Amino acid sequence: MRLARIDGGAGERSVAVVAGATGDHVLDLGPRPLSELFAELDGIRDLIETTDAETLPTLDPSSLRAPVRPRILACLGYNYRGHVPDGVDPTTDDPATPDVFVKTANTLGGPNDPVVVPAVADDVDYEGEVAVVIGRRAHAVPLAEAMSYVAGYTVLNDVSDRSWQRKQSQWALGKCFDGFAPLGPWLVTADEVDPQDLLVEVVRDGVVTVSQSTATTIFSVAFVVHHLSQVMTLEPGDVVSTGTPQKLPDAQEAHRPLAPGDAVTVRISGLGELTTTFVAPPGDSA
Amino acid sequence: MRLARIDGGAGERSVAVVAGATGDHVLDLGPRPLSELFAELDGIRDLIETTDAETLPTLDPSSLRAPVRPRILACLGYNYRGHVPDGVDPTTDDPATPDVFVKTANTLGGPNDPVVVPAVADDVDYEGEVAVVIGRRAHAVPLAEAMSYVAGYTVLNDVSDRSWQRKQSQWALGKCFDGFAPLGPWLVTADEVDPQDLLVEVVRDGVVTVSQSTATTIFSVAFVVHHLSQVMTLEPGDVVSTGTPQKLPDAQEAHRPLAPGDAVTVRISGLGELTTTFVAPPGDSA
Repeated sequence: MRLARIDGGAGERSVAVVAGATGDHVLDLGPRPLSELFAELDGIRDLIETTDAETLPTLDPSSLRAPVRPRILACLGYNYRGHVPDGVDPTTDDPATPDVFVKTANTLGGPNDPVVVPAVADDVDYEGEVAVVIGRRAHAVPLAEAMSYVAGYTVLNDVSDRSWQRKQSQWALGKCFDGFAPLGPWLVTADEVDPQDLLVEVVRDGVVTVSQSTATTIFSVAFVVHHLSQVMTLEPGDVVSTGTPQKLPDAQEAHRPLAPGDAVTVRISGLGELTTTFVAPPGDSA
Repeated sequence: MRLARIDGGAGERSVAVVAGATGDHVLDLGPRPLSELFAELDGIRDLIETTDAETLPTLDPSSLRAPVRPRILACLGYNYRGHVPDGVDPTTDDPATPDVFVKTANTLGGPNDPVVVPAVADDVDYEGEVAVVIGRRAHAVPLAEAMSYVAGYTVLNDVSDRSWQRKQSQWALGKCFDGFAPLGPWLVTADEVDPQDLLVEVVRDGVVTVSQSTATTIFSVAFVVHHLSQVMTLEPGDVVSTGTPQKLPDAQEAHRPLAPGDAVTVRISGLGELTTTFVAPPGDSA
């Protein structure tokens, strides 16, 4: 089941996105945020099953907004193992715990929000990530129960300016420019996908620059929810993003910082595609 | 002028705290958060001047809550120069930019909220800090104008678990346990203090363990607001905390992790005192 937030001009609404013979349609779920609907998923599922999709309004993709507004947006660094072309698993070098940082509220964007390349940032990069959406309050959750706290998954582009990220030991400023967390296009409920078997890809200028399965992550979604919940009480709608794979070798070689006019698509099997356009600051005549 | 949030049992209210002959009194300013009153400070000042403090209700200190609920709580590491007993200024080693990290929404507490020492955290420490409260939307603010974006100051105890902080390169998990950001007791408006001439002290078990002036910070409040606003649009009520001085040498020597039963007071000249008690997790029989 796909759940989304849309705004057709009369304020944001929660909807289920329902596939029909002629494309995607929307089933209105009211103004309440998705985070308040996570306890009612069974009823929503029944409603979808008893509705003829073709009788519903067509989804206007330009109406899609960020599916949730997380109170906490926590992200992992270094969670994918490197490529293993010679078949040697580098598991022995895995850290015991994930490296975690935070993106602030000003970073959140939706699937139709362009990202401004700030005038002061000269090394802007993308990171394609599976974002875990918390479904119910999670505090000190045992590992074996962690998955029951996950409402579903969406796609995050963890946009980062490497020059600000490298200025100091802590990455916050490189990660927290306005709009640097586009999220979407929708949430796919946890029952529909295996989060350890998703293909994460990034397409830039028609070239696939990232392509790696979540099977190669060091820390599973279950472990990440368990681990973070030892520290912070996570609430419905909070998001934990699971890190990005490395760029493919050719893409690392060809990489140049993102500039106004670029577009980056993060596509994840089972979750959908998030395309973000990068633009100049308002009033910039360049 | 001191502005606070209180809750006498009927919901939170904004108040001005007014000194009278018999102690502190409260002038009610309504339910709107302080962040919505920052544009009306002149009117509030006039109201206080035309009111006889003794006719107002007495302040009940136990009713004080966190003065603001920041959407963004950004903190500095390493902002105070070490003590200079031989008169040599170590300015040559100053970094060019501050190290910045984020405390998440679950960390916020008020002056009457005890902090739970988590069962999984065995090296909990305090940090006494001047917290800058943003007064109006700040984006790419020039250094010379930065102070006009500051509404005032309050006191933060940047509680930190050193063992979780040291697990990885990023400090987030050590900084973001529930309740690890007690803030208060009130906001002192920017016109009343010189933020580069405040004495920051911490008292633990009756012993002064930190005592250093903000005159010894590497980065001024003006620079910090200017610098962060290049990255993130700061909104009224957002907080930027300016880092902690080192512990005094004897206190460093005698330091042991905070444990249930401890109390720590951060007191800052002109701003007031914030005392935080540390307690065992609920249901813990230890």
